[in-house]
Parts: sequence; C-alpha cells; structure tokens
Amino acid sequence: MTEYRRLRVALLGAGAVGSQVASLLLEHADELADRAGATLELAGIAVRDIDAPRDVDLPRELFTTDPETLIVGSDIVIELIGGIEPARTHILQAITSGADVVTANKALLATHGAEIFDTADQVGASVYYEAAVAGAIPIIRPLRDSLAGDRVHRIMGIVNGTTNYILDRMDAEGAEFDDVLAEAQALGYAEADPTADVEGYDAAQKAAILASLAFHTAVPLEAVHREGILGIDKAMMDAARHAGYVIKLLAVCERLAGETDASATGEAISVRVYPALVPRTHPLASVHGANNAVFVQAEAAGDLMFYGAGAGGIQTASAVLGDVVSAARRHIAGGVGVGESTRANLPVVAIGRVTTRYQITLEVEDLPGVLATIAGILSDGRVSIATVEQNILTGSDDLAPGAAPGTGVARLVIGTHTAREQDLSETVDRLAASDVVARVVSVLRVEGD
Amino acid sequence: MTEYRRLRVALLGAGAVGSQVASLLLEHADELADRAGATLELAGIAVRDIDAPRDVDLPRELFTTDPETLIVGSDIVIELIGGIEPARTHILQAITSGADVVTANKALLATHGAEIFDTADQVGASVYYEAAVAGAIPIIRPLRDSLAGDRVHRIMGIVNGTTNYILDRMDAEGAEFDDVLAEAQALGYAEADPTADVEGYDAAQKAAILASLAFHTAVPLEAVHREGILGIDKAMMDAARHAGYVIKLLAVCERLAGETDASATGEAISVRVYPALVPRTHPLASVHGANNAVFVQAEAAGDLMFYGAGAGGIQTASAVLGDVVSAARRHIAGGVGVGESTRANLPVVAIGRVTTRYQITLEVEDLPGVLATIAGILSDGRVSIATVEQNILTGSDDLAPGAAPGTGVARLVIGTHTAREQDLSETVDRLAASDVVARVVSVLRVEGD
Repeated sequence: MTEYRRLRVALLGAGAVGSQVASLLLEHADELADRAGATLELAGIAVRDIDAPRDVDLPRELFTTDPETLIVGSDIVIELIGGIEPARTHILQAITSGADVVTANKALLATHGAEIFDTADQVGASVYYEAAVAGAIPIIRPLRDSLAGDRVHRIMGIVNGTTNYILDRMDAEGAEFDDVLAEAQALGYAEADPTADVEGYDAAQKAAILASLAFHTAVPLEAVHREGILGIDKAMMDAARHAGYVIKLLAVCERLAGETDASATGEAISVRVYPALVPRTHPLASVHGANNAVFVQAEAAGDLMFYGAGAGGIQTASAVLGDVVSAARRHIAGGVGVGESTRANLPVVAIGRVTTRYQITLEVEDLPGVLATIAGILSDGRVSIATVEQNILTGSDDLAPGAAPGTGVARLVIGTHTAREQDLSETVDRLAASDVVARVVSVLRVEGD
Repeated sequence: MTEYRRLRVALLGAGAVGSQVASLLLEHADELADRAGATLELAGIAVRDIDAPRDVDLPRELFTTDPETLIVGSDIVIELIGGIEPARTHILQAITSGADVVTANKALLATHGAEIFDTADQVGASVYYEAAVAGAIPIIRPLRDSLAGDRVHRIMGIVNGTTNYILDRMDAEGAEFDDVLAEAQALGYAEADPTADVEGYDAAQKAAILASLAFHTAVPLEAVHREGILGIDKAMMDAARHAGYVIKLLAVCERLAGETDASATGEAISVRVYPALVPRTHPLASVHGANNAVFVQAEAAGDLMFYGAGAGGIQTASAVLGDVVSAARRHIAGGVGVGESTRANLPVVAIGRVTTRYQITLEVEDLPGVLATIAGILSDGRVSIATVEQNILTGSDDLAPGAAPGTGVARLVIGTHTAREQDLSETVDRLAASDVVARVVSVLRVEGD
C-alpha cells in the first residue's frame, strides 16, 4: 500500500445520491486513493434525521446533524442536499473556509451560480458540478475543458429522463400522456407531483447551466424560455411519426450572429426548453427510455453527442466521485482553483427573436380557395411555406368540434421554412381568427434538421 | 481588454492538424486568452520544409526548421509531427525543459507512453493527448477525470473512421470491399496505402491508449490482439444484416474477473481489435460514415456513449486547443502536473482466454445426420449452440468450391452461447477438418448484446 496524504471529505445529505456516494467512498477507498493520489477520508455525513431509512447501510457513527461543524477543516465538501437553502449557505461556508466544493445541485447553480462561482474565484477554490446536468454523462468537463479552445454554436439536449421516458412510451406504443404518466409514477420514473419534470422546470435549470458554460455568460434562469409537454397528445405523436419525426423535450442553447448591438461581435444567445419535432434520422431521435443525451455543435469539432443515464442514485454518484477525485488531485498538485470563465457575457434574446422551422397543423373548411387564403395569411406574416399536406377528414371521428356538421373538413399540415418566432406566433393568431380555419390543431418547432 | 500573463506556445508540425491549430491560435487569440486566463503567444512553428504547401495561409516569419531552439523557454509545446522520431525526442526535451506537452501522437503514446508519462511525473509536467484518440470527441478527459471515481468494466470503440466508412458503405449499398475502398481513396477518406487502417493497426494503437487509461495499467501495443477488415465481404455483410446485425471494426477493452493469480483481485484485462457483429439496436450500430464513437460501461455510471467526428484537421485541432487551454490554466493556477495513474497494473490476457458469443457460418453436405455430427463436434469442444439456421444452397451460384458437383449443399449459420476463444478456435479447426463440412464460410464474434 502506498502511503498517501489524507484529505478530509465532508458529505452533506444522504438521499438517493448521497448514500451511494458514501458507500462508494468507503467500499472503493483504496482504488480512489490510487486515482486521487490522496486518501479520501469520509469525515462525516450531515443529515436532518439520523434515523431516516436509507438505500444503503452506512456506519451510524458517521452521521451528524451539525453540518457547520463538519465543514470546518474539511478539504472537500460534497453538497447533495438539493434545493436553495440551506445548501447555498453551506456551500458558501465551505468555500470561505478553504474547501473545494462538489455539488449536484442544479436548482442552486441555475439561480445562485454567479454568487457561488464569484466567491470561489475570490479565494481560489474550485466548484465541481458534473452531476448537476445529465447525471453520469460527462458533459460539464467536455464543455469547460475539451471544447475550451473551440466555439460552441448550438447545444440540443435531452436532459430530463422522466419526460423522455413519457414521450418515448407514447411514441413506441401509441399511448396517451395520462396513461404513461400514471405508469411512470407507479414505476418511480416520475414524482407524485410531476410538475418540475413535465412543465420543463428541471430542464430549464439544466439549460441555464449548459448555456452559461458553453457561452461563457451568466444565464439567469428567468432568461430561459420554458414550455412543458402537457400539450402533447397521442394524435400529435402519431402525426409526427407519420411525417418522419419524433417529439422530444429539448433544451436548446444557441449562439446567434448579428442579433444585437450590445456586444462587440453582434452576437447574442438564445436558451429555451420546449417539445420539438426531431427527424428520426437525428442521433437524438434514438435516445430511448429515461436516458439523456446532449448534442453539441462546435465550430471546429463539428457534431458531438454525449449519451447515457441521466439520473439514478448510483449513476449520479459516479459523476460526484469523478469530481471528488478531480478536487483531490487539485489539492495535491497545489495552486489555486480556476473559476468559471464568464467573460463573454452575451445578451440572451427573448423567444420572439428566435428562428426555427415550424410544423402547423390546421383543420380547415374543404372549400375552393381555402389554401390560397391560408397561404396569403402566412405570406403576409413573413412565414414561408416549405411543404403542405392535406387530408380530407369529413365523416371521420376526428371531425373538429368547431366545424359545422355536414361541412367538408380537411386537415392541413404545413411545414414552414425558417421563420422568426414572433412572426410565426402572430401569424398563427391570424390563422386562428380566420373564417376558413376551424381549429389550429398544433404548432410545433422543428429542431435538428 | 483584460491584461493577461503571456505564455509561450511552440508548435511542432504544420500538416492537416498543425496548420489548423496555428490558424485558430492566431484567429481566436482574444477568446482563447479569456478561456485560458493567459495570452497564448504562438512563438513559432517548426517544420521540415518552410516552403511546403499548407492548407491555410500562415505568417512566414513564424516558421523555423529548428525545433530544439523553439522548444527552449516555451511554456507549452504542441507536438503534431506524428510518428516515433523525432517526435519522441522533442517531447522529452520539452518536458525536461519545463514545458507542458500537448500531442495527438497515438503511435508514440501507444509505444513510448510509459517513458513519456514517467518523465513528466518526475518533473511535475503534464502531457495532454485528447486528440490522439477519436479526433474531436472528448474521451480522454472523461476517462481520466469524469470516471476517475468509478470502475470501467468495458469499452467498445469505433475508433477508425476509414474502416467505419468502408463497412458502412458496404452495409448500406451492398457494395464489395474493393469498390468501396477505391472510392474512399478517391475521396481522401482512405490513404493510398490503407494498411494502417484496414488491418487495424491504427485502431490497435488507440485501443492500447484507451485501455491504459481506463484500467490504470500500462498496456503495451504488442498486448493488443489485432484483426483487420480485409476478410469482410459482401456476403458476410448481407448475412449479418439478415440476422439483425451490422459488422463494425471494434476496439474492445475489457476487465475480466477471476482470471489471474497475478493481481490481488484476480482481475485481468483484455484488449483487442477485430470486426464483430453488433446488434442493429445497439447505439454503436447507428454510427455511420467516417464517424467515431466510444461506448463505455462503468460500474456506477452504467452505459455511456461519446460520438462525433473521429478525424479531420479542423476537428482534431479543436481537441488540441482544448488541451492547450487546459495546460495554460494549469500554468496560471500553479502547482505540479498530475501524471497518469497506472497503479493497478493488471495483467493483459491473451486472446485465447477471452470469452464472447460467435456466429459460425458453414457450408455442409445436405445429408441426414450432418447436424448431429456438427453439434457433437461443438459440444466436444465446449461450445454451446444458441441458434441454428439452415438454408439449402444446391444449384445456386453460391455453391462452395469444395463441394462435389451434384451433391446437396446447405448453409448452416450457428450462433453460439458465450465460449472461450481458444475452445472456439480449436472447434472451428475440427469443423473444417470434418468430412461433412465443405467450407467454413466465416467465424465472427458478436459484441454488444
């Protein structure tokens, strides 16, 4: 056995991830020491309730209900409590007392990241957070280090496992949203209150973290445009499949050229979360189940994709331990920590200024001249038509509630060229108000083609 | 403009990758300085012939034919000459003179990696080589850092773009190997002498590097079992497709339990490159064209995949620059470099001790009792049959040269359960020698199911 320097590690939180981290730190102590070049001594585990049931058996003497005392004198503090407080206070205490911090806390980083990174910069500490986005998938380190000499143009991420599981099941089985959600809840893939997942809040936090890192810009959570998957139904999934697409909840982080006078280069960024049509041939389309994947387009590197399990206690623990080893190596090597570089500070544009392609599905009166009227509305709105497909629906069960009985009704699926979101949205309002349109069935953005 | 400390960067080589690296260092100087926290001053570019044609225009005054003088006083030396000498001598000079080294030289690392990493360890320098494996895809950093707290069980990599391009075209178009190779050569995807690619030498070098890193063991190139794709023909591709597989050239790095008395844990590793049948549903099956992908299975993280462009001057330059920024950050932060951890030193087993599933295709006499004879030979050889499919071939153009005219000939496709390579190989010899077997058409390993 090599004799290593000992580093004192404090663990805050012993939930699904924390208990796995503690267990791996104890079980793999020798191997971790060889990797880190230091013995990682788990000094204690701060929890609210020492007697709470845990996923794994851990030595009772490690537990404490006093995180402040545990943090004092620690070299590395692992924060796995989650949420804003007391996690924020503990992390700031750890940094100012000279520790490096490892955290998986996406909510905290998305809202108080700047404060935490600034504080770390001032004292030369490092904050590691590979586990905060996409679980075990290494994406923070590739963005921060591997692509540091490149320019990221665009990220499209499937970063929420619950919604990907739901959409994937709806796609594969032609099931309805409510049925799949109920099943996902029964299987533990979805929370009893699924709001954070299905309304895109979780994905929006991760999008803010990814965009901040990729574009060297502090992106506030409020600047992330967010739409969830509550509006996605079986009919939309079926139509998407028919047209060669699959619907995925995407976190899109995009660099826009010539968008602003606020930066020297005219560059701005857009950060948004919404369900979008993804071509079946795109690598993201084959991300199934609760898996995550992050697709990155960079100027020099071209297209990259990172794929794996996006959640799970043991998987996320892997990412946490990788960060712990990095923090330990830095302690051994000496020198100060290198903070986040947020020097580009690009403005974040509102969703209205974003351009994508769209697919608009309408139910219209099946009368002569209808298509000309609709084409006119689109053209007036600066939305250019790429494809049109028409199906006669009269007599089908699918007859629109708004259509007069006995009238011929047709379904029109319009694929647009790239259009500006604001133009598109105003045009859809005008379509909805038009006499010839019975119903706007759906409006979906198309990404990745 | 922030005032940064200046770091002196020496570039050795100005080929496809080197000229792109120089160009990006000059063009993106301000952004790179913001990322690195240091101004990266390109001090010079050492080449053999200053007047050789280059892919990009570079200031003539940067060129020199004297690498030794350029290296002296440099903070970061980028080696992009390739091959063993003089690259090895230059890298050792750079390390001992106090520089950090960035290299894309897979041949050198696969053969002299231990010498280079040991020398760097002694002086506290760092060697970065993200570009040596899978071009722009971040795989070195994820293995070294992100998974440092985990245990890698298995890596399956498509790490040679040329052979993946050839196999993908053969699969998609039903084309013959020679035709696709000729076209790949015309398009510049394959070298005039394609030996290094099609015989698996390039993939074997990358496999040695990946295995060394994943298993913390210095894996000599000679320990890598290597087979190329020269034996793969249209008929094998068609049969694979029919059976739900695609043939890929894989670099497989595997941790084996209970294999040896030489290590405390009984663990050993296997490192091998060969064409294998991959199920169509496996993520590696959808890696098309000249792309690369590395599929990693780790104890805690589960399955991960890293995907992107495996080669190309500009793509590889992205990985080189990421390493340059990392090296610069380390210089600014201070402290010593952290070397490779190769403390596990697991033994590498010979190919004969590896176990996989196999698919054996035979042409046999179509007579009663033949299947029983063959099943007997397999069973005697400790090879257990999972599936058998038989097609009558008599009268077809596909009649085996070894079959007597007028005899009934059948094709037998046998899928085995997991078998030991040595047992399998001896069994195939016995099959080939048997009276009832006209020809052993192919023996392929199955990976990833």
